[in-house]
Amino acid sequence: MRRLDFLAGAGALNYGHNHPALTAALVEYISKDGIAMSLDLHTEAKAAFLSTFAETAMSRCGLDHVVQFTGPTGTNAVEAAMKIARKVTGRTTIAAFTNGFHGMTLGALAATGNAAHRRGAGLPLPGGALLPYDGYLGPDVDTTAYFEALLCDPSSGFDWPAAVIVECVQGEGGLNVARADWLRNLSRVCRAHGVLLIVDDIQAGCGRSGGFFSFERSGIVPDIVTLSKSLSGSGLPMSIVLIRRDLDQWEPGEHNGTFRGNNLAFVTARAALDLFWRDDTFELEIARKAKRVHEALAGIAEDHPGVFAGQKGIGMMQGLLCVDAERAAAICGAAYERGLIIERAGPRDEVLKVFAPLTTPLAQLDEGLGILAEAVDVTSGQSCRNVA
Amino acid sequence: MRRLDFLAGAGALNYGHNHPALTAALVEYISKDGIAMSLDLHTEAKAAFLSTFAETAMSRCGLDHVVQFTGPTGTNAVEAAMKIARKVTGRTTIAAFTNGFHGMTLGALAATGNAAHRRGAGLPLPGGALLPYDGYLGPDVDTTAYFEALLCDPSSGFDWPAAVIVECVQGEGGLNVARADWLRNLSRVCRAHGVLLIVDDIQAGCGRSGGFFSFERSGIVPDIVTLSKSLSGSGLPMSIVLIRRDLDQWEPGEHNGTFRGNNLAFVTARAALDLFWRDDTFELEIARKAKRVHEALAGIAEDHPGVFAGQKGIGMMQGLLCVDAERAAAICGAAYERGLIIERAGPRDEVLKVFAPLTTPLAQLDEGLGILAEAVDVTSGQSCRNVA
Amino acid sequence: MRRLDFLAGAGALNYGHNHPALTAALVEYISKDGIAMSLDLHTEAKAAFLSTFAETAMSRCGLDHVVQFTGPTGTNAVEAAMKIARKVTGRTTIAAFTNGFHGMTLGALAATGNAAHRRGAGLPLPGGALLPYDGYLGPDVDTTAYFEALLCDPSSGFDWPAAVIVECVQGEGGLNVARADWLRNLSRVCRAHGVLLIVDDIQAGCGRSGGFFSFERSGIVPDIVTLSKSLSGSGLPMSIVLIRRDLDQWEPGEHNGTFRGNNLAFVTARAALDLFWRDDTFELEIARKAKRVHEALAGIAEDHPGVFAGQKGIGMMQGLLCVDAERAAAICGAAYERGLIIERAGPRDEVLKVFAPLTTPLAQLDEGLGILAEAVDVTSGQSCRNVA
Amino acid sequence: MRRLDFLAGAGALNYGHNHPALTAALVEYISKDGIAMSLDLHTEAKAAFLSTFAETAMSRCGLDHVVQFTGPTGTNAVEAAMKIARKVTGRTTIAAFTNGFHGMTLGALAATGNAAHRRGAGLPLPGGALLPYDGYLGPDVDTTAYFEALLCDPSSGFDWPAAVIVECVQGEGGLNVARADWLRNLSRVCRAHGVLLIVDDIQAGCGRSGGFFSFERSGIVPDIVTLSKSLSGSGLPMSIVLIRRDLDQWEPGEHNGTFRGNNLAFVTARAALDLFWRDDTFELEIARKAKRVHEALAGIAEDHPGVFAGQKGIGMMQGLLCVDAERAAAICGAAYERGLIIERAGPRDEVLKVFAPLTTPLAQLDEGLGILAEAVDVTSGQSCRNVA
Repeated sequence: MRRLDFLAGAGALNYGHNHPALTAALVEYISKDGIAMSLDLHTEAKAAFLSTFAETAMSRCGLDHVVQFTGPTGTNAVEAAMKIARKVTGRTTIAAFTNGFHGMTLGALAATGNAAHRRGAGLPLPGGALLPYDGYLGPDVDTTAYFEALLCDPSSGFDWPAAVIVECVQGEGGLNVARADWLRNLSRVCRAHGVLLIVDDIQAGCGRSGGFFSFERSGIVPDIVTLSKSLSGSGLPMSIVLIRRDLDQWEPGEHNGTFRGNNLAFVTARAALDLFWRDDTFELEIARKAKRVHEALAGIAEDHPGVFAGQKGIGMMQGLLCVDAERAAAICGAAYERGLIIERAGPRDEVLKVFAPLTTPLAQLDEGLGILAEAVDVTSGQSCRNVA
Repeated sequence: MRRLDFLAGAGALNYGHNHPALTAALVEYISKDGIAMSLDLHTEAKAAFLSTFAETAMSRCGLDHVVQFTGPTGTNAVEAAMKIARKVTGRTTIAAFTNGFHGMTLGALAATGNAAHRRGAGLPLPGGALLPYDGYLGPDVDTTAYFEALLCDPSSGFDWPAAVIVECVQGEGGLNVARADWLRNLSRVCRAHGVLLIVDDIQAGCGRSGGFFSFERSGIVPDIVTLSKSLSGSGLPMSIVLIRRDLDQWEPGEHNGTFRGNNLAFVTARAALDLFWRDDTFELEIARKAKRVHEALAGIAEDHPGVFAGQKGIGMMQGLLCVDAERAAAICGAAYERGLIIERAGPRDEVLKVFAPLTTPLAQLDEGLGILAEAVDVTSGQSCRNVA
Repeated sequence: MRRLDFLAGAGALNYGHNHPALTAALVEYISKDGIAMSLDLHTEAKAAFLSTFAETAMSRCGLDHVVQFTGPTGTNAVEAAMKIARKVTGRTTIAAFTNGFHGMTLGALAATGNAAHRRGAGLPLPGGALLPYDGYLGPDVDTTAYFEALLCDPSSGFDWPAAVIVECVQGEGGLNVARADWLRNLSRVCRAHGVLLIVDDIQAGCGRSGGFFSFERSGIVPDIVTLSKSLSGSGLPMSIVLIRRDLDQWEPGEHNGTFRGNNLAFVTARAALDLFWRDDTFELEIARKAKRVHEALAGIAEDHPGVFAGQKGIGMMQGLLCVDAERAAAICGAAYERGLIIERAGPRDEVLKVFAPLTTPLAQLDEGLGILAEAVDVTSGQSCRNVA
Repeated sequence: MRRLDFLAGAGALNYGHNHPALTAALVEYISKDGIAMSLDLHTEAKAAFLSTFAETAMSRCGLDHVVQFTGPTGTNAVEAAMKIARKVTGRTTIAAFTNGFHGMTLGALAATGNAAHRRGAGLPLPGGALLPYDGYLGPDVDTTAYFEALLCDPSSGFDWPAAVIVECVQGEGGLNVARADWLRNLSRVCRAHGVLLIVDDIQAGCGRSGGFFSFERSGIVPDIVTLSKSLSGSGLPMSIVLIRRDLDQWEPGEHNGTFRGNNLAFVTARAALDLFWRDDTFELEIARKAKRVHEALAGIAEDHPGVFAGQKGIGMMQGLLCVDAERAAAICGAAYERGLIIERAGPRDEVLKVFAPLTTPLAQLDEGLGILAEAVDVTSGQSCRNVA
């Protein structure tokens, strides 16, 4: 059965499966006997990626950060970011936000909200501190004021953190969007109190939330940024950490790893940047599609009163908050039967998560959204009958 | 120089220095060759304390808790309370509040807010989680709602705690009074989510905040209560933990210690309970004096506009919040020169802390408050001149 | 029933129960309305203790350490010692030894060997590292060589510790005696590698193991020493930490506490020092009695082949290692029935622990040892019958 | 300049760079539009790898373990192994050995010996316990006896661990070989005490130490095994954890990750297994080459008395222990100038590490060893002159 994919490799396939241009670049590289091994040494593939990354992604925000290659998993990038923040500041705590998701290794897990994942560690998670995300105390409370109060109060019990780690849009946490003002306040508080700001852009970056970086809409410049998932463009494992130049105080080999130089991923990553991020064409396309998704979801919500409690997300990471998690599961099931792969997010998996590749043709996007509407229809009918 | 004491042994001398009745009981006990050694074995002094404590203190709130004798320091009682909470629930986190103070040993320190004390540990403090105390987010926010939101949200990142530890009035934290409604909400949230409620009554208990226990005014029944400081009545080291009967799952010797049976302290503790807590005479006397203190402080504040930012506290633990900490220090210094010992509290030691013995005769209380007013006068004058 | 006491308040009654001279000093102090409250302020009782302590105990080894008064429990003294060691070195780990015992609060517990006690914490114990005590790898292995190898090896995985904490004789751990050479090696390794040496003399000090300090026989000078238990002489709660003068880098109030100035304990402590430690009379008496105990225990072991696996201890902290723990329990039970209180120690409570007050008259000492022999007789008989 | 590679991608290139058969398989897969994305879903490439892995690697030792796909870094596999061990046992400690190396993320780092790496974490590493590796206390001490003593002693202070993690040959730690008897004793002690045995075969596995698994020579069957580095054969990122079937108690998604299904790596991994591990040809070839390396190193050592302190390693992970680290560095430098890439290992990088691809033709192997001898010559000469 032909299926439309609104999962996109959990955000690792922003340019779709096996994009021909990327595949071609890959085959060419391998055929020319390009170095395949992944130790983090100098290669042409790496140099080419670096220059293209600087010209495209980094130049968008005037970033002059150092690019660190870590083990090619998002969690490894997060661990590296945490390490360097702790090292540079000499402090141990990394504050993270409610509903955040940053990875499965012990350090990253301490910053991850999901209780089942946290329990999975099998021991108390070290080095974290919890802060309420934008909106967690209601739309009228600016939670960065609470953060600042804790920092200003010498008996608050909140240990002075090395850094704050934040997603500008929380994907796993339920497509929660931090307001641009809130991000600016967060950045200001961090700066005022000597706390480093780490933006984890593993899911919301690479165009998913609109621009290449998720923080572009706020104008902030994070001290440290983590990237992975769609960075390679092809779904191949790759992760990097961007570090403000003066914070790059790593000793040689201090955070080593065997696969930090995944050349095949570098080849496709560069090709993707070349193809999509040389000008603003792609970005405008994302905006158009995001609008389409937003309108379609609004329509679905309107057509099914009582089923949804709100629209979530931004850019091409949008969704619908179902009033109950069972309904969300039923809708996904019904969509799958009708040829649409769609997943859920949120604390209870109660948010339908429209995560189509950014390259999805409009016709397919509409088709998928149509199937989704149909799935809501069908399950709502059943549900109403159950209630009546 | 004769001095009035508004410090009261940091709250350990609620009945004043060397109360004759307590001294007499002590001398009698020693003279009769009563057992002096402090191992936690059965003695007559202990048995007498226990029955008197049940008849006086515990019967006030219908408590049927088990009395555990711990090493005779407040921090040891807190450590015992934390241990049994962790043991019974199988969970590791103890949530504590901003501006809380619970002791100096490693476990208790994790629940203590003061940054200098926390740093003193020399390693990251384990097993804690931080919650905003009543009023920390402004008078209109019920912070127990935030607590409950964290508990209800499976990806909040807030690990399900074994217990919450709270002072109903925060002494060291600046004489912050939790509202009775807030305490009831806290108790309700704890109960609803299977979180134990520990009230640390080491400073606010034994009459200091009005009743024998600080939580009497709210009607809540904590699962665990810690007592120390004025418990012995004489300033002798003594600490106990009250544990809800079904939670008393200690193994023999699981929290042992050499000095858990300080018989001399038991003798004076019993005499104090007999003398002061057999009926409501003393409690009414505290209320009268508390009113006097409140009025006097209000007058001082009124007479010195711009010096104070508010009145703090309740019962016989009241004070004035100075607009700056230097002023508070200057006032204490001026008071000392005039014969009044008074200390400060709060995150920056910016709160003048009137902590007179509960037995202070009215005349002396007035005298002390008069000296305090004078000290404010003098230092304000200087300050005004500086400003003018 | 009259009973002989070979428990001595778990080591807190080295001078016996209610020694008349100490009681007299206490009554005199109280009767003269001496300050009873225990806040750590200057008092005459404290000053008198300090000068007497310097003249007697400290002058024995030429110690010039600062005396810190901590909350009056052994565990509080240990926590203070750990804190200052961490603060001064900037490191977090405190290494401790197999079978050690240092207290029940979270920090001290991390250095305590007993598994049941450790589990009682309810969370992983932070900041510790484990080393094998003298003899743990057999009599021929100097375990300080292993310690030094770990320190010298930059990939040993043994984090450079702030300090090592050690009992020169392990009481609870089973009356294990560290050889003088081993102590000297330990001291040398610590010094060579910038690791502070903390001797926990809470149980083995105050004459229990022979001299006033347990380390006198080795000639080492620890950087930090903790004392408690028999320090007050009367069984009253009291604890101090001796800190090498240059290591006393405490900020004011950094390790505060309400009962750090237990004046009643100071009075008896001073009287005890005056009485017993002005010259070497008492020490020689201890040596004589220790010899008596040693010979008696040797006789008991010889008379009951197969019951004991060895003689343990030194000074007046000696014992017999039973081949099984049940036998040890039975012997204690039989002794109790015959009028002797005697307890057990060791990992499985398999060591009979002769802990008579140092002041026990020879006749009573012999009587107690006689009852012990009888108890072994009786239980051995039963046991032999069981076997045959 | 043409260079011989005795580094082999830090052990990730056991079959050399860009092995034609593997490259061909890769190109074929990509050209046929095989799924490139790496989410851990079912694919043909994965199924083919699994069946081939079972037929070749696992069948060698009769393993019936479950294969878990983790994020494609060694450290992620180690974190997963630790998590499942903690989860299944309900205990928190993972014991690791002196000089061990297990990865750079926080959980794995707690088991890694290197002090610089450990410090890099920036906070105390949680959940570890240290044991001496085979030979650490000298050749005559069986350190598993110490391990067992700690486990048997209820007051040892050694918390009952969830698992032990061990490398059968320590690569980074200096090519330390655990004796087969020692491994069997370790396995026996673990089994007797309910401690899981994790073999980290990331570096020593995939033929590097002789057989496919490093533990084959001992006959033990670990409860959990981690594999990575040369597993993909091509240097592409890939990691797996083998878990005893009854221990596979993962919940769905409990250790998730975006790149756990690196299909390109599966393709080459399968091709490598097919090519090299279907029969014993390759294994015998490794043995022959290992002998050649051993003899050559013995010759070099013999020819240069005073330069080396011993021969290290086994199989194709052998080396020479230099008497000083500077010499080792100088030798590597001289070798590099002469066309040989060779790295160092050991606590101070004092061990020359011959890590040629297992497929290195004998002639090239000899050539490389010749260059190494030459490099020793040259640097020794200088050194001798310095000394003389």
